[in-house]
Amino acid sequence: MPDVPTRILPGHGSGGEMMKSLIEEVFLSYFGQPFPGGMADSAVLPVSKLLPVFTTDSYVVSPLFFPGGDIGKLAICGTVNDIAVTGARPAFISAGFILEEGLELSVLREIVKSMAEEAGKAGVKIVTGDTKVVEKGKADKLFINTTGIGYMDQKHFHIHRGRNVDAGDMLIINGYIGDHSIAVLAARGGFNFSTPAESDCASLGGMINLLLERFGGIRWMRDVTRGGLATVLCELADDIDFGVELFEPAVPVSEPVASACGMLGMDPLYLANEGKVVMVVDGSEADSVADYLRSHPNGTGTAVIGEITAEHPGEVVLHTTAGGSRLVHPLAGEQLPRIC
Amino acid sequence: MPDVPTRILPGHGSGGEMMKSLIEEVFLSYFGQPFPGGMADSAVLPVSKLLPVFTTDSYVVSPLFFPGGDIGKLAICGTVNDIAVTGARPAFISAGFILEEGLELSVLREIVKSMAEEAGKAGVKIVTGDTKVVEKGKADKLFINTTGIGYMDQKHFHIHRGRNVDAGDMLIINGYIGDHSIAVLAARGGFNFSTPAESDCASLGGMINLLLERFGGIRWMRDVTRGGLATVLCELADDIDFGVELFEPAVPVSEPVASACGMLGMDPLYLANEGKVVMVVDGSEADSVADYLRSHPNGTGTAVIGEITAEHPGEVVLHTTAGGSRLVHPLAGEQLPRIC
Repeated sequence: MPDVPTRILPGHGSGGEMMKSLIEEVFLSYFGQPFPGGMADSAVLPVSKLLPVFTTDSYVVSPLFFPGGDIGKLAICGTVNDIAVTGARPAFISAGFILEEGLELSVLREIVKSMAEEAGKAGVKIVTGDTKVVEKGKADKLFINTTGIGYMDQKHFHIHRGRNVDAGDMLIINGYIGDHSIAVLAARGGFNFSTPAESDCASLGGMINLLLERFGGIRWMRDVTRGGLATVLCELADDIDFGVELFEPAVPVSEPVASACGMLGMDPLYLANEGKVVMVVDGSEADSVADYLRSHPNGTGTAVIGEITAEHPGEVVLHTTAGGSRLVHPLAGEQLPRIC
Repeated sequence: MPDVPTRILPGHGSGGEMMKSLIEEVFLSYFGQPFPGGMADSAVLPVSKLLPVFTTDSYVVSPLFFPGGDIGKLAICGTVNDIAVTGARPAFISAGFILEEGLELSVLREIVKSMAEEAGKAGVKIVTGDTKVVEKGKADKLFINTTGIGYMDQKHFHIHRGRNVDAGDMLIINGYIGDHSIAVLAARGGFNFSTPAESDCASLGGMINLLLERFGGIRWMRDVTRGGLATVLCELADDIDFGVELFEPAVPVSEPVASACGMLGMDPLYLANEGKVVMVVDGSEADSVADYLRSHPNGTGTAVIGEITAEHPGEVVLHTTAGGSRLVHPLAGEQLPRIC
């Protein structure tokens, strides 16, 4: 190797010196040394009295960069949010990279930098990792898996199963839906949207932790990603002995998303988000929770969008803007591929 | 969807109904329900007083099936072994799948079955997962990420950094090296090896746990994967203030590997393994440890292959079969791509 390579070569996944250089010069230079002694194949974590929460996601978004984010930022936000919505505090992340031979090292570097920045904001440490290289044409530039560990106070255990959800509880979302899907779609080119959408990609751990410290009436939460709000609410209805009512006029949809959906015949209720949480909140606290969320940078567009009812258990009923009502079904097939 | 699909379609990664069916009919049917209430995006784990150990690996082996294993078995063994060599007991695994559109569901099913079987043998639970689908030509059939959590007794904390390694300690390996690499290479076709090699792919957690219960003199361990024995020993030498001496005639090499290496001009010291652990053991216990390992199914080929010395700190010296000696260097570039 007389020259420093500018692209990923098979040797970068070898387990030998080239891989070691890549780890030191790219990964460790941004992620830092997680513990004294450097990054080994395994990270030994501190003991905790809290319940560990464990979640995994692979990221295959195309293109790698889009308005509002990139695959690296997404890989942190997505996994942080999966943990945060259980009521746990995200803490440690592993990062597994599958790199296509020929990927520009400058692109990898930019993405790793973005991961490090988002991890810093979200207060999580990237503590262990893995790198594999496949031949040109056997992957699409790069894929990232992040797996996360968070810690949950026992008093929040009911949240991830919605055990305390009750009729009269209200549904709240922290802002506009669908912007991530439309931003990624626009970044692929071929469309000429009049107003550009920007991905909502954000780590919600901080906001959710503050919320849980302040309010006792958070009954259930879920990040609204693939499948969209419609699918997430259908899963909620499946898990509880109550019905879900959704008020279409109350659901926040931005102008760019509304116009793109109109143009393409898509329903924003099925679009993916990467910085949205929908929650069920005790009715008596709903307005205070919504006000509090609006005061947080990740919740400025917060709206109360529905209610839990004793009627039609297991079903989601949409009260439409037109004044009618209909059953909401989960996404059947695919709406937009590779948006995360 | 009037017909049940026989191949992976974009909708299987959608977050909607098709993905739910895939999870229920393929993943959960083999992995089982990890906890009452089914598999959610996140798994809540029990509290432990032991140190959590966290490790990640992506698997991109090609072909998916090879003598002695497949990508699914490998994805469990590799991650279990990464944890076990720290002295921790492997416990929980997450499984992230990246599937290429068009992959036969029967192939996925066979691989998932293999993962479930190996997880059962290794005593680990697959507790959370993720599925992404990319277009045909944007991946190579399927890639798997497994991330694992194990639990370590504080008294074994010294092992993963080799803190107690001392001159006079002996190097032990639990059997023949290089069989995994040669088995995968042969499965790719194009070679006509006279004797077929079989991958050593095995979960070593059970054997290692028994060893640690019985012997106090295990000073350091490492699984011998990418980069081979040579690279792993160079990393050991880098981490300690001692030298490493390796006796070439003592290193177990099977007939198929020796003959394939002769034919292809490869050195078995740089070949990957998936069921081998090399350990540094207190000299006074080395023979008893070796005898004990030989009595275990994963250690029948165990050999004492070297020694830790006060001389040439930071270096690995090979005493060759020919009677000479030379410095061993870590693998520089790539020997065989995509063997794990």
